[in-house]
Amino acid sequence: MTLNNVFTIIFVAVTLLSCKKKDTRTPPSTSIETPIQVNEFAIVIHGGAGSQTRKNITPELDSLIRSKLTEAITVGHRILKNGGSSLDAVEKTIHVLENSPLFNAGKGAVYTNQETNEMDASIMNGANLDAGAVAGITTIKNPISAARKVMENSPHVLLSGKGANQFAEEQGLEIVDPSYFATEKNLRYLRKIKTLENKKLTALLTKKYPDYKFGTVGCVAIDKNGNITAGTSTGGMTNKKWNRIGDSPIIGAGTYADNNTCGVSSTGHGEYFIRAAVAHDISAQIEYKKVSLKEAAENVVQQKLVALKGDGGIIAIDKYGNIQMEFNTPGMYRASINQKGEIYTGIYKDE
Amino acid sequence: MTLNNVFTIIFVAVTLLSCKKKDTRTPPSTSIETPIQVNEFAIVIHGGAGSQTRKNITPELDSLIRSKLTEAITVGHRILKNGGSSLDAVEKTIHVLENSPLFNAGKGAVYTNQETNEMDASIMNGANLDAGAVAGITTIKNPISAARKVMENSPHVLLSGKGANQFAEEQGLEIVDPSYFATEKNLRYLRKIKTLENKKLTALLTKKYPDYKFGTVGCVAIDKNGNITAGTSTGGMTNKKWNRIGDSPIIGAGTYADNNTCGVSSTGHGEYFIRAAVAHDISAQIEYKKVSLKEAAENVVQQKLVALKGDGGIIAIDKYGNIQMEFNTPGMYRASINQKGEIYTGIYKDE
Repeated sequence: MTLNNVFTIIFVAVTLLSCKKKDTRTPPSTSIETPIQVNEFAIVIHGGAGSQTRKNITPELDSLIRSKLTEAITVGHRILKNGGSSLDAVEKTIHVLENSPLFNAGKGAVYTNQETNEMDASIMNGANLDAGAVAGITTIKNPISAARKVMENSPHVLLSGKGANQFAEEQGLEIVDPSYFATEKNLRYLRKIKTLENKKLTALLTKKYPDYKFGTVGCVAIDKNGNITAGTSTGGMTNKKWNRIGDSPIIGAGTYADNNTCGVSSTGHGEYFIRAAVAHDISAQIEYKKVSLKEAAENVVQQKLVALKGDGGIIAIDKYGNIQMEFNTPGMYRASINQKGEIYTGIYKDE
Repeated sequence: MTLNNVFTIIFVAVTLLSCKKKDTRTPPSTSIETPIQVNEFAIVIHGGAGSQTRKNITPELDSLIRSKLTEAITVGHRILKNGGSSLDAVEKTIHVLENSPLFNAGKGAVYTNQETNEMDASIMNGANLDAGAVAGITTIKNPISAARKVMENSPHVLLSGKGANQFAEEQGLEIVDPSYFATEKNLRYLRKIKTLENKKLTALLTKKYPDYKFGTVGCVAIDKNGNITAGTSTGGMTNKKWNRIGDSPIIGAGTYADNNTCGVSSTGHGEYFIRAAVAHDISAQIEYKKVSLKEAAENVVQQKLVALKGDGGIIAIDKYGNIQMEFNTPGMYRASINQKGEIYTGIYKDE
């Protein structure tokens, strides 16, 4: 081969490869194309995205939150470390968050317009795409367990209202009187919101109480068998009316898990998360665009949701154990532990 | 340039291009890559997928169904032809199907285990990804209109149960006594199903009444402005318990619409459609894999759903006005009209 030939080959190769780069159908190859087994098992949780800043969170609350997040995630991490399933890890971790009045789920569920507490939850098993969810339950101490019972012991995915309560009772789950969910703090909060809403002071309402549409807990885990589970639980929106259902019990919006891609749990202004099918969209971008979890999550949370004016965030783990915590709000309560036992807790954007 | 050089160039080009072909991230280019404006506007409807064959549908029922499908779709087609919106076309077309006892939606809604009729519906506007849905409503004559009111006049996407009824009433929609939805045929059907279920004769139940989990109506349209709307309405599953919610009111499962990709309405065994996020997955494949609507629909309905053992089908229209009707069941009630006014009706697989 002459030197001339060699130059010709290089020229043609570079030209063709640069053409390929311009083909928008072929996104740049990323870590998911050259997998690195980052974590044999991993777990991540959130306690809700919102307006958290160092200005509006007292040091005492900051410390309480971090301590509860640590307690919760340690429960799940122990299960995974001992070879337990991601299903168990997610359920038991969420129990800790549901049993705390600090988060809008279970015991800490916010009030509806009718001064009741109506909770939603969902769980999805990435191994077989099985899923369960409940919406508008009022008497089950741990809504995430009701979602799991729907998945495992019913032919359905989503049960609602009285029927969901009844099913969970039939399953032997712990029943509580609706007054169990009563908290002075949340009731005062509802009444402040209602007062401003009744006066049609919507701008002031959003300014004074920017988080009244927010609040959720969620957990995603991958176990030693590579099985991914995602779960989400919430009391919904303060002052919600008309038996509104948000994204938390909606598979594809609030929760999605597929061992071939990732698991996702969402938190934020639910209506936007439903319209953008947030959890499934992140999974679909990994599957079809072959981008990394990081790229998919950034695209959905920082671009697609922002374009729709949808506030919130997600936590996710991909099939390689990579952890992602992405939010477009000032803060998000969150924590993660990787296989090495390294724990991370975060509240604000800059940490 | 020598002849030798020319051969070298051709050799390198062919080698590189064939390498590119093997890159599974780059699916073969299809019609959506070289768009042909097939229809300036178009409309498609379904009246449910199921076990329909020429053996189990009498010629009289066949004729009744085709005539009602034709009546319904003509209403929507006329709106589109006169420059009306796809939102109006979808809503008014679905009214005709909801007002007929022939289909499992509105007047023809099947019975729950409690011998009540609980209806679900959803609608999505592809222009802005706005969406509305209702689940478990019992007093609204036309559930699809309740879904549209939720989309247009509430800050929410999904309302349920009593709250959804109340919201629709406040919106001035036509209210009926629950007895309006009573039909002798559906009540007899429920009681047969219950008898077999109570005797735990599940195999016989599925053999004798293969369609008891099915039945939905839906419509997708694209108007002269290129706006796509999708809508779905159903009475759900015969003998449903625990306020079960199927895929019809779930944005991303039963309904999805995005002007940049397509609009989809699903019909089938709802639980599988939720787990596979069917409507959003078809849209995502068009967006991220750059495949045609036909390829995306076939992949989801004939491969992904079949792998999960999920029976049913979808109707869809892409942004070029291409119509797709895809199902993995023996039949699906369906009809379409393209811009030229050519009407098609179908029930069985081979037509």
